Amino acid sequence: MVDTKAECLTPEDVKARREADEPHSPVVRFGDDRPLRLDAGVDLRGLQIAYQTYGELNAARSNAILVCHALTGDQHAANLNPVTGKPGWWETLVGPGKPIDTERFFVICSNVLGGCMGTTGPASLRPDTGRAYGLEMPLVTIRDMVNAQAMLVDHLGIERLFCVAGGSMGGMQVLQWAASYPERMFAALPIATAARHSAQNIAFHEVGRQAVMADPEWHGGDYLNHKLTPHRGLAVARMAAHITYMSDQALHRKFGRRLQNRALPTFGFDADFQVESYLRHQGESFVQRFDANSYLYVTRAMDYFDLAEDYDGVLANAFRGSKTRFCVVSFTTDWLFPTEDSRAIVHALNASGASVSFAEIESDKGHDAFLLEEPELFAITRGFLDSAARAAGLPPLRAG
Amino acid sequence: MVDTKAECLTPEDVKARREADEPHSPVVRFGDDRPLRLDAGVDLRGLQIAYQTYGELNAARSNAILVCHALTGDQHAANLNPVTGKPGWWETLVGPGKPIDTERFFVICSNVLGGCMGTTGPASLRPDTGRAYGLEMPLVTIRDMVNAQAMLVDHLGIERLFCVAGGSMGGMQVLQWAASYPERMFAALPIATAARHSAQNIAFHEVGRQAVMADPEWHGGDYLNHKLTPHRGLAVARMAAHITYMSDQALHRKFGRRLQNRALPTFGFDADFQVESYLRHQGESFVQRFDANSYLYVTRAMDYFDLAEDYDGVLANAFRGSKTRFCVVSFTTDWLFPTEDSRAIVHALNASGASVSFAEIESDKGHDAFLLEEPELFAITRGFLDSAARAAGLPPLRAG
Repeated sequence: MVDTKAECLTPEDVKARREADEPHSPVVRFGDDRPLRLDAGVDLRGLQIAYQTYGELNAARSNAILVCHALTGDQHAANLNPVTGKPGWWETLVGPGKPIDTERFFVICSNVLGGCMGTTGPASLRPDTGRAYGLEMPLVTIRDMVNAQAMLVDHLGIERLFCVAGGSMGGMQVLQWAASYPERMFAALPIATAARHSAQNIAFHEVGRQAVMADPEWHGGDYLNHKLTPHRGLAVARMAAHITYMSDQALHRKFGRRLQNRALPTFGFDADFQVESYLRHQGESFVQRFDANSYLYVTRAMDYFDLAEDYDGVLANAFRGSKTRFCVVSFTTDWLFPTEDSRAIVHALNASGASVSFAEIESDKGHDAFLLEEPELFAITRGFLDSAARAAGLPPLRAG
Repeated sequence: MVDTKAECLTPEDVKARREADEPHSPVVRFGDDRPLRLDAGVDLRGLQIAYQTYGELNAARSNAILVCHALTGDQHAANLNPVTGKPGWWETLVGPGKPIDTERFFVICSNVLGGCMGTTGPASLRPDTGRAYGLEMPLVTIRDMVNAQAMLVDHLGIERLFCVAGGSMGGMQVLQWAASYPERMFAALPIATAARHSAQNIAFHEVGRQAVMADPEWHGGDYLNHKLTPHRGLAVARMAAHITYMSDQALHRKFGRRLQNRALPTFGFDADFQVESYLRHQGESFVQRFDANSYLYVTRAMDYFDLAEDYDGVLANAFRGSKTRFCVVSFTTDWLFPTEDSRAIVHALNASGASVSFAEIESDKGHDAFLLEEPELFAITRGFLDSAARAAGLPPLRAG
């Protein structure tokens, strides 16, 4: 078949696609004898997991922190991102001397199952056919992501993690870890998250998916095998999602009704307002780094997340008997995962008798606060890890 | 040129399009000697306004209420909609014995300038070329809409309206009326609205516009002249907007995480959750009744709305010296036009010395509450109009 639209691929597309199979990070590939049994009821063979580590694992293998990324994050938590050339997504929190201190802890971050940065997902080439999975990739759940991470942790020879930490979808993974592998983690730090995805959040995700699937270049999901990319649909999806990551206050503070490089409106459909050109930029830069099908899969995994469901509808049962120490964090202006969602987690943890502390942080930055400069988040994270490390008997940080 | 895609037009498309020029309602068409000077700085010639009236104008011509519709509303406030076959959009509030009682008042409702139900807009045929305007239609503002309505009110021989009422974008028109024509109205009822569109609201509108313009069938805005319709882009736009019309609570109450006609998720991208199929339905039914370019124009008019701007940035100046009686209404769970926006209007009215009462209604229905069964809204509207009618010296409603 002649690829008449090969010119649709930008150099960035090609670069981003290469990451799906040959990422700029270590990978572990499991043999066909080590399939991952998915919640969808099928075995995924030839699983590849791409990951980064920071710091050093101590001799007792007791200082590992698994950091779980959000919807469009990746394994590059604390190093320059190979696709965007920008800092890692959690460099605010992870690094030498940072709250998640890589001079003390061995930090692991892996690309989630269903992602597009080197862990098996719809953009990966199928080992059996050599063609991109596309929609032939089975759907994955948060639990599948966590089970894949557990295989990685096994592979790294770590029996028990000191902590699992993450925000948003990363926080969902933290909660699933706590439910699935309570004996394999000492502490848990779920931030700006929920034990189940709300109807409103499912609705926003559905809009994004419909935007992608409405783009003719999505091509029934098989665009990669036709050298196409549904740029426009994916950009619209990102724009809609991006609004939900910010608070009304933050948007107002950043942009208000200010016009973009002009004194008067154009009376046209150009980006008159700064907030419009900001959003367009968010959409355009996103499509250079993210696979559209991955967006479908990972949003779907979040939608399906309802931790209580596997425990007779009682969330507390998910944590029953857990010895893990929890620190739950929310932000006042986060309307995507409002404090109410965190409180439901805390109530369940209390009901289950688990050890939990809870902080609602005053911030006007909305959901994105967990990725940004938030001194209170830094202080809480540092304090929680320090106290947990003492309780776990980890040696104190050697004086520099 | 051969119309290879003529089959893209459904019978509903054809029906909806006919409304743009030959609506199922009275119209007034102004001659070339009566152009409407637009804020964009151009004269719009051959202006047509489609409208409905309910009840009877009294001999003193003093009992007229102008009802202004929201973004995707139309002139069919209180009669069966000729396109959808559904009740008028404000039959909850307007009709015989209703709070806006058509046995007492003469109610006028016109399709807004830029609309697609018979008032001149991008879907209308240009009088000079016989082709649809498309993007050749100049951009319009809320003030342009109001100036067009004033021409209609003149045409109906009404010097002074008893009241101007509306919700959302309709409320913006009410405020603009109060600023532009204070001597032509006795009372004003702006509901669930704002004196300026927020950055977040502009952002949501921009997502919708980008969704429309990303659809190849939008065809640079000239789809009507090519017998195309950007169904998919417009549906995505509507889906995104629809989420903002409802409260998180209402979505949760209506749908929660309930699955659509099944016991288990499909592990696919079908509408698994009821909220998804509801949203898809909203998108699909909307495209049958609304013109995509109209959506661009009318959202843009809302974005441009900032009433204070024309008054040295001081909103109170817009109402200085006004003798109009205001009743401002908001709803507790409306996050699109939160109570804060209504309070800003009330503060400005107080500062200008105008007569104003204000009610924040407890409701879990979100922004859409103004269109729904809200007994408190009904009682407030009835009470306000009754008291204003007495003050205006309108005869009491004759005993039936």
